[in-house]
Amino acid sequence: MQPKLTLVGAGPGDGELITLKGIRALRQADAVLYDDLANDSLLDFAPKQALKTYVGKRAGKASFTQEEINTLIVRLAQEHGHVVRLKGGDPYVFGRGFEEFDYARQYGIPCDVVPGVSSSIAVAASQGIPVTSRGVSESFWVITGTTRNGELADDLRLAVQSKATVIVLMGLSKVNEICALYCQAGRGQLPMAVVQNGTRPDEQSVIGQVWNIPQLVAEQGVGAPAVLIIGEVVSLHPSYLAECLRSASMTY
Amino acid sequence: MQPKLTLVGAGPGDGELITLKGIRALRQADAVLYDDLANDSLLDFAPKQALKTYVGKRAGKASFTQEEINTLIVRLAQEHGHVVRLKGGDPYVFGRGFEEFDYARQYGIPCDVVPGVSSSIAVAASQGIPVTSRGVSESFWVITGTTRNGELADDLRLAVQSKATVIVLMGLSKVNEICALYCQAGRGQLPMAVVQNGTRPDEQSVIGQVWNIPQLVAEQGVGAPAVLIIGEVVSLHPSYLAECLRSASMTY
Repeated sequence: MQPKLTLVGAGPGDGELITLKGIRALRQADAVLYDDLANDSLLDFAPKQALKTYVGKRAGKASFTQEEINTLIVRLAQEHGHVVRLKGGDPYVFGRGFEEFDYARQYGIPCDVVPGVSSSIAVAASQGIPVTSRGVSESFWVITGTTRNGELADDLRLAVQSKATVIVLMGLSKVNEICALYCQAGRGQLPMAVVQNGTRPDEQSVIGQVWNIPQLVAEQGVGAPAVLIIGEVVSLHPSYLAECLRSASMTY
Repeated sequence: MQPKLTLVGAGPGDGELITLKGIRALRQADAVLYDDLANDSLLDFAPKQALKTYVGKRAGKASFTQEEINTLIVRLAQEHGHVVRLKGGDPYVFGRGFEEFDYARQYGIPCDVVPGVSSSIAVAASQGIPVTSRGVSESFWVITGTTRNGELADDLRLAVQSKATVIVLMGLSKVNEICALYCQAGRGQLPMAVVQNGTRPDEQSVIGQVWNIPQLVAEQGVGAPAVLIIGEVVSLHPSYLAECLRSASMTY
């Protein structure tokens, strides 16, 4: 029996957005650790006899601490062999994937990583919004809404000045603060979208401008997990103009 | 016969980093348009009788202009049915995917997009570098090195001030200018990597700090396509310290 860890990106939600390489790793798994963001149907690619352990958060409560997950990975690899750690999106886009990789490596366990389709790019696409478009946006900036100390990421203060498409993951609870930052910088008119459950059948979105997004989110009851997309590319959304007219007519 | 366009992300180079959804689209293709960045083995997923047309750049020379590609997509969809446009990485991360989508849509052709694994994230991972890591980097910023007017992207001037991991695609020809910008901002000591042919069997990289990367790139003959990765996360590369010591001993 050979201990081994493979971090696998499960993609943004749609069960068909996993890669061939990710499926191959799952087929060779002796144990799978998975969280909420991964589509549960992906577990069917793993052998029936493989141990499957849920280590995510339910109702905002973590079932395992990060330290417990790290320890579990090492123990399962030593006792069972090949551990596949299935993570939503891409394993290295937030989500502490590198910490798990690094911890296992310190125990001499061979580690590998299979990148995934990141929700930072795919959720916008699912709404018809390209993160970049020639002449509209030459860059995109992906920022976490949930920093270690619970405050807004410093980078957001710089992001409000940039021409980049700004994408905030895990930032719905901070949407009011983020929009306020843009408005203070005189950029309240920037197009913005908030997308819940992107790429899943129950995907829903709110389209508007930075200044009225907090109100639209509250009215339409958008919940987590959600991706915030801020920048001129949002105006390429097929119903952007109609949405702006609709909210203007509600306001005046 | 139903005209249709599906933009498919082919992933960063490794032929197994395409998604299940991408393969399903290829299997239903009547015509495939592909470029250099896609792995040629992916064409085998398309039916034998499907028309396969190369529209990329060879030796830096475009075989088709963007306008010709747009027109070709529409003509093939109208004459053959389902056109799959296979693009390296993700279809909406640079590469003018949205222009193709938008053009076809204006002709009333139903359009779909299948996101892909982006080299902006996966190439760093392939080198053991996470684009984000808790306590090291809370964001990553993906910038094109090749703007419409041939100049450095404005965003780079702001990027040198940020704590983001900065990833520059198609930027190898501008590496000296980009490094000079960082040095002028007093950030020449930032860890930096240049990775050619990321995720392919012939992947090679140069690891160092911003100040000595231009010299290392010239000495080691790194060529395009290459991804530049700038930020503290590069110090997590397993041989970062050894590389810094080696180049220091060569300099003094």
